[in-house]
Amino acid sequence: MKRPSIILNFKAYPLSYGKDALKLAKIAEKVSRERSIEVILAVPFTEIFRISQSVENPIFAQHVEHFQLGAYTGYILPEMIKDAGAKGALINHSEHRITIDAVVGTIKRLKENGLESVVCLQHYELVHPIAILSPSAILIEPPELIGKGKAISKERPELITRAVDEVKKTPDVILIAGAGITSGADVYEAIKLGADGVGLASAFMLSKDPEAVLRDMVDGALRAFDNLG
Amino acid sequence: MKRPSIILNFKAYPLSYGKDALKLAKIAEKVSRERSIEVILAVPFTEIFRISQSVENPIFAQHVEHFQLGAYTGYILPEMIKDAGAKGALINHSEHRITIDAVVGTIKRLKENGLESVVCLQHYELVHPIAILSPSAILIEPPELIGKGKAISKERPELITRAVDEVKKTPDVILIAGAGITSGADVYEAIKLGADGVGLASAFMLSKDPEAVLRDMVDGALRAFDNLG
Amino acid sequence: MKRPSIILNFKAYPLSYGKDALKLAKIAEKVSRERSIEVILAVPFTEIFRISQSVENPIFAQHVEHFQLGAYTGYILPEMIKDAGAKGALINHSEHRITIDAVVGTIKRLKENGLESVVCLQHYELVHPIAILSPSAILIEPPELIGKGKAISKERPELITRAVDEVKKTPDVILIAGAGITSGADVYEAIKLGADGVGLASAFMLSKDPEAVLRDMVDGALRAFDNLG
Amino acid sequence: MKRPSIILNFKAYPLSYGKDALKLAKIAEKVSRERSIEVILAVPFTEIFRISQSVENPIFAQHVEHFQLGAYTGYILPEMIKDAGAKGALINHSEHRITIDAVVGTIKRLKENGLESVVCLQHYELVHPIAILSPSAILIEPPELIGKGKAISKERPELITRAVDEVKKTPDVILIAGAGITSGADVYEAIKLGADGVGLASAFMLSKDPEAVLRDMVDGALRAFDNLG
Repeated sequence: MKRPSIILNFKAYPLSYGKDALKLAKIAEKVSRERSIEVILAVPFTEIFRISQSVENPIFAQHVEHFQLGAYTGYILPEMIKDAGAKGALINHSEHRITIDAVVGTIKRLKENGLESVVCLQHYELVHPIAILSPSAILIEPPELIGKGKAISKERPELITRAVDEVKKTPDVILIAGAGITSGADVYEAIKLGADGVGLASAFMLSKDPEAVLRDMVDGALRAFDNLG
Repeated sequence: MKRPSIILNFKAYPLSYGKDALKLAKIAEKVSRERSIEVILAVPFTEIFRISQSVENPIFAQHVEHFQLGAYTGYILPEMIKDAGAKGALINHSEHRITIDAVVGTIKRLKENGLESVVCLQHYELVHPIAILSPSAILIEPPELIGKGKAISKERPELITRAVDEVKKTPDVILIAGAGITSGADVYEAIKLGADGVGLASAFMLSKDPEAVLRDMVDGALRAFDNLG
Repeated sequence: MKRPSIILNFKAYPLSYGKDALKLAKIAEKVSRERSIEVILAVPFTEIFRISQSVENPIFAQHVEHFQLGAYTGYILPEMIKDAGAKGALINHSEHRITIDAVVGTIKRLKENGLESVVCLQHYELVHPIAILSPSAILIEPPELIGKGKAISKERPELITRAVDEVKKTPDVILIAGAGITSGADVYEAIKLGADGVGLASAFMLSKDPEAVLRDMVDGALRAFDNLG
Repeated sequence: MKRPSIILNFKAYPLSYGKDALKLAKIAEKVSRERSIEVILAVPFTEIFRISQSVENPIFAQHVEHFQLGAYTGYILPEMIKDAGAKGALINHSEHRITIDAVVGTIKRLKENGLESVVCLQHYELVHPIAILSPSAILIEPPELIGKGKAISKERPELITRAVDEVKKTPDVILIAGAGITSGADVYEAIKLGADGVGLASAFMLSKDPEAVLRDMVDGALRAFDNLG
């Protein structure tokens, strides 16, 4: 994964599948190309194949299990998402929590398959412990801010700062700030505080003008990075 | 759903995804056409689109949630599987149990979307209670026989007979017998006992000659039906 | 279980354990004796022994598993609650949902141990299906009303009426209405609509005068019963 | 918690509750006194009060939730086990896995209540990450050995060695080895490899002579400690 890193989580929103999802993916591709920035799309399992065939952005699964291939009706494993075109997966999203053993197991299984892993966490105290397990990235997201239009970078800047301090104890793990990011200014702030990227969902998925929203966010990220460089 | 009904559950077996899955789906399509029989394929979420584009057999999801479209990262909803090409879904598979509220909710949500629902149960006492909720079908599958090569029709014929008695209390609900079905003779027996069809998984998915296996099963089903008719 | 039936769910409220819980149990015992009515106390596992030793009211567990005695660290089984002094258990409470197989299994295991079973449900469509499994009682409780101070009997009287119609299809299963019951008038209404009793939690557990609250409720129940008789 | 530390997990075995459980607890107390060693008893929630009133050994819960006191029907919280007489709890037992957020939350909530926390893990890679969260102890227990009569100290000594190396990165966290410990020789070996104690369950709970078994184990531990000292 590259810096700055923008992850768009399609969740299971009304526009997260079918033609609408393809249209949103095309918008993300357009903005990514314009600004030469990586925008990852985390899409429902059913959409991985179609969207990865249609756009050049990296496609992630929103979840994946750690079991070996076998008798697991209704579950999706790393080999399946890879074959369908995914480059990685979210792990332990706040809407899909798993056990600690599953976190370790999923990071390993994704790595074995050459896939990226983004572990979602709400407690900054977990950043260092989980970073030791060497996922590609950690997405810190206080649940009380998710989908509330209150940006983590404004409301709880200390959560980003502390998470940044924690993640620095291990090299190479990317830190992404999520929750409540709705504008380029929020993104700018998060990256200035030390995050390597941001996670977005409702601000983009439920917007009337998703292209403008994404362009604003991306510009916020690029401005903060230039400023840091 | 038609009678006799054959459901092939791909589970998450090594050949359940990608090219191998397509090849197995093509085999199922060939046998279905030859014998003019409906063979339903229950495939991983990631494969629904590709397989439904490639074969004419009805494709089912192996699971689906009952939530309304919204913030449910990593979950798959009826609208998504329908858009991807599915005609129905398994519910409450023994490897993916859900709450009773979720059973009711999922049957409703599938119906709203014009999709079939197959509720998996292990206790025959549940057949009548769940049939009252009007799913398309009930798949009765004693977990102790799953994947053991011991057919429900041989080992526990009374489970089929009792389930048949129970399902008759409600009209129009199809009864499918699963677990340990490995030969045409097992299928024949199950249908003679009153089942409307059978569910298969390992016998087909792990076979060296899946085409021969499926043809044998299908012939067992047709023989039993001719016999009954 | 008797009619009318009042169930006080202590939940895990601040007064649900230790001396406070004993005090509340004593209040319930006092009112029960005064009015010669059965008031069941559903208490945390840790409190079953102490409270059942101290009051004559029937003590229920708030949950219980259906496994056989064995290697189930941290789980509580019917034999344990019985030995500690319980007379029954709630099953599938809206805060503790279980699979349909577990519902069947738990009803059976409680019966084997001579214990009562109260299955909690939110959908009236489930009342008949679950009543077929012969629990002692069904507690119908629309989750949107729980703890909101809006009584099921006022806000959704049709839910009680429909549930009553459904439960009548099987003899001997008691129907209890829960959610939002806060006054004797609510209780009166619920029983007039056909319920055999009511379930209470916050109205009693969080009240400044739990004795007055309970007496008011009990009187509402008795008035409705006299009126019906 | 003291060194060496012996934890007896009563699980939900046939003798885990009521009079039998009290009898086993008395045996443990007798051996503890004789040898002046701490033997912790992890018992079902329903037994905490009775057993803690009857023996002087520290009583632990086998599980506990991290929620704040409130509307959590059927769940047991730190305040409840403390009031009933417990001194600590097992967390994330292999038979009762929880999310990573729940692990952090439970350690904190136990600490707030002055209770000990023993986090169970199967992967040695998790030992350091979880030790950072400062539980009282970590119990390493490869699930493939649990209840198999194959001791971790014989079958997988490297798991203990690696776990010991990992736990040393944080001061004050005790390391306990579990799984398959059946004799004093197994205990001796585990402690010689660097463990601070052992966890036992079936070897004691299902034994015909639990007193002899426990005395043998305790002697193995003491011998290893003398040897180390």
